[in-house]
Amino acid sequence: MNDVPISRRSLLAGAAGALAAHSLQEAGLGRWQGAAPPPAVPPDPTKVPGAPMRELGQRSPFEQPRRIVGQDSSLTPLQDLYGIITPSDLHFERHHAGVPAIDPQRYKLLIHGMVERPMVFDLEALERFPRVSRLHFLECGGNGTLSYHAIRPDFTPQLVDGLTSTNEWTGIPLATLFREVGVKPGATWFLAEGGDAAVLSRSIPMDKAWDDAILAYGQNGEALRPEQGYPARLFLPGWEGNTNIKWIRRIEVADRPFMTREETARYTDPLSNDTARMFSFVMDAKSIITFPAFPVTLPDKGWWEISGIAWSGRGVITRVDVSTDGGRSWAPAELQQPVLPKCHTLFRFLWKWDGREAMLMSRAVDQTGYVQPTLEELRRARGPGTSYHFNHIRAWRVQPDGSVFFGLEG
Amino acid sequence: MNDVPISRRSLLAGAAGALAAHSLQEAGLGRWQGAAPPPAVPPDPTKVPGAPMRELGQRSPFEQPRRIVGQDSSLTPLQDLYGIITPSDLHFERHHAGVPAIDPQRYKLLIHGMVERPMVFDLEALERFPRVSRLHFLECGGNGTLSYHAIRPDFTPQLVDGLTSTNEWTGIPLATLFREVGVKPGATWFLAEGGDAAVLSRSIPMDKAWDDAILAYGQNGEALRPEQGYPARLFLPGWEGNTNIKWIRRIEVADRPFMTREETARYTDPLSNDTARMFSFVMDAKSIITFPAFPVTLPDKGWWEISGIAWSGRGVITRVDVSTDGGRSWAPAELQQPVLPKCHTLFRFLWKWDGREAMLMSRAVDQTGYVQPTLEELRRARGPGTSYHFNHIRAWRVQPDGSVFFGLEG
Repeated sequence: MNDVPISRRSLLAGAAGALAAHSLQEAGLGRWQGAAPPPAVPPDPTKVPGAPMRELGQRSPFEQPRRIVGQDSSLTPLQDLYGIITPSDLHFERHHAGVPAIDPQRYKLLIHGMVERPMVFDLEALERFPRVSRLHFLECGGNGTLSYHAIRPDFTPQLVDGLTSTNEWTGIPLATLFREVGVKPGATWFLAEGGDAAVLSRSIPMDKAWDDAILAYGQNGEALRPEQGYPARLFLPGWEGNTNIKWIRRIEVADRPFMTREETARYTDPLSNDTARMFSFVMDAKSIITFPAFPVTLPDKGWWEISGIAWSGRGVITRVDVSTDGGRSWAPAELQQPVLPKCHTLFRFLWKWDGREAMLMSRAVDQTGYVQPTLEELRRARGPGTSYHFNHIRAWRVQPDGSVFFGLEG
Repeated sequence: MNDVPISRRSLLAGAAGALAAHSLQEAGLGRWQGAAPPPAVPPDPTKVPGAPMRELGQRSPFEQPRRIVGQDSSLTPLQDLYGIITPSDLHFERHHAGVPAIDPQRYKLLIHGMVERPMVFDLEALERFPRVSRLHFLECGGNGTLSYHAIRPDFTPQLVDGLTSTNEWTGIPLATLFREVGVKPGATWFLAEGGDAAVLSRSIPMDKAWDDAILAYGQNGEALRPEQGYPARLFLPGWEGNTNIKWIRRIEVADRPFMTREETARYTDPLSNDTARMFSFVMDAKSIITFPAFPVTLPDKGWWEISGIAWSGRGVITRVDVSTDGGRSWAPAELQQPVLPKCHTLFRFLWKWDGREAMLMSRAVDQTGYVQPTLEELRRARGPGTSYHFNHIRAWRVQPDGSVFFGLEG
């Protein structure tokens, strides 16, 4: 037996397995560059009629962005993405018993417990309530495990931090549903239960419902994808992914947390002083440089735009600093508008590379003044047994030959 | 012979053909409701293991949003969309000679004419320049033709206004490239030429390049889709779609417009007074209610949320008013944040339907104070020969049985 929680073990196993499927990523930007013949194109595309219209579009055969599939999660190809939107078919996955197939006509959501009027809603009833649509990131609580526990120089941004994505989420403010059923005085928590074979369950403080929780059925303008909880999920802006219960079928209102397996045996962080961090819901401010990053090789010195994403579960990113000398000096990056709360924010930093070894880092600050910590600071606070919330500063080493590798040490 | 421009004729033909393929849309929200057996699902999804992870996700088999494919354009299913983001595979299309297949390794962009240093850029060179990413709508100049020339009660939002979509676009400010080649004094226009079999070409005032024009290679976080100009296109925020040259291969800087076929025989609007609107680039403020709309039937009276999209090529939408009595009285709708310039903006309006006949309308106002005109006002200004820029107020009739039809008259 060992004490490493399953979720971390499986993430490690997943990533290791994924490394074997790594060749696609090595092309950079997910673009076809293989030894196989390229997709056929005419010598002069202006001399032949083009392809006809289609009901549904497809990517160019030259573009092959892919999730890396592990044992129980799949990772978004951050290094292939240009913007803040993650295409729905590339949104990261994390499942506990696979993706259930659910008929929307038979879907039901029960809300009961400490409420005046226990009710069952079908999808049609849910869709009649007033809607909200918001752009938010979603991040697995375990994102960044490898960069804390098992650093390797050949990690890509996808392998380091691929368990975060940003989509536009649409649904009903959970507060609307709670007003509909009438929450009783004294209710402080609710249980959210999924309709997958794991019947994944988490306890959520009622305050989150009165704040910004959403019962979501839409993603990037259309219905949720099956792996994102079709036909409906809980969406808790800025909170660790595991609490955003997918395929949600039951909400029970109570005056205490339910102490489910997913918040006791899992998603609780043992600390070095023999206490533990429990119900550590919020994903703190974080950033990662996605260019330049392994497996990119810079072909020459001169001007390059360093770019990446920053995000915070506590609101908007107010500042990202970039260092090119391993943290000795820092300068502010430019933030791409729009800068939205609890949403990936693009940052860009013009850098004139002198051709010598360099160490690139980014450090995010959010609206609360919180500053992304160093790896050393995080290790001091958390110790070796921790499995979640790895938001320390990431580092990329640029070598004189232009090759780029992950981590502080060569 | 008749005088109706090809673009309008083909739009009409396309839409008529599309009506035959209409059954999918009649389900509402693109959801499976047919007579055929539904996709197979287990009786209790919690009792069987779910499907495994995938490198690329797919929609639920119960969800079938589709573009309607016409002769030379395809329409975004606006009534199926929840947010401001249009999924890339549902972004509208408008082609003049089909979709060319282009090898990104062989792609070249020539910039020449009144410049100090004529240059040819390959894709790698373009990708090295500093980037911008922006959320913007793109709308065909002919969008709304049917609602001006050939109103039918059984039009869906997709058939009325499906030639508009919003994506996140990434690329290089065109101004950066123009500074790189050194535009000569006196240059006032440039030609943008596409690499499709139509070699589609338009003249663009140089001011747009200094303002916000983008040489775009990214769409919704990833590479452009083939039908959106892969590997690179011109993107002119807020300007009629036809000027946003796809598969761009050549830019020629000059001191005059080039008077191409696409801006003389096409995309020029004859007016009733025997003059014509030329170079009418900007898409003016516009809105459409997407719910309730044909083919929806409201099952009962009571509270309903009217919702839709508004947009303006001149900046942000500052206000959308909704009328439920055919324009006699108006009240402001709620605008969903974020409200971004030259981007679809969601509006919502809570309406208590009394079960009697109602006429729903929306009226957008933008940051310049411009107010979306009525159909009567637009017809007075433009006359019967016009083929572009149909931004008049749209109307939906709700009948006592809950059925909803397009247009002012029953």
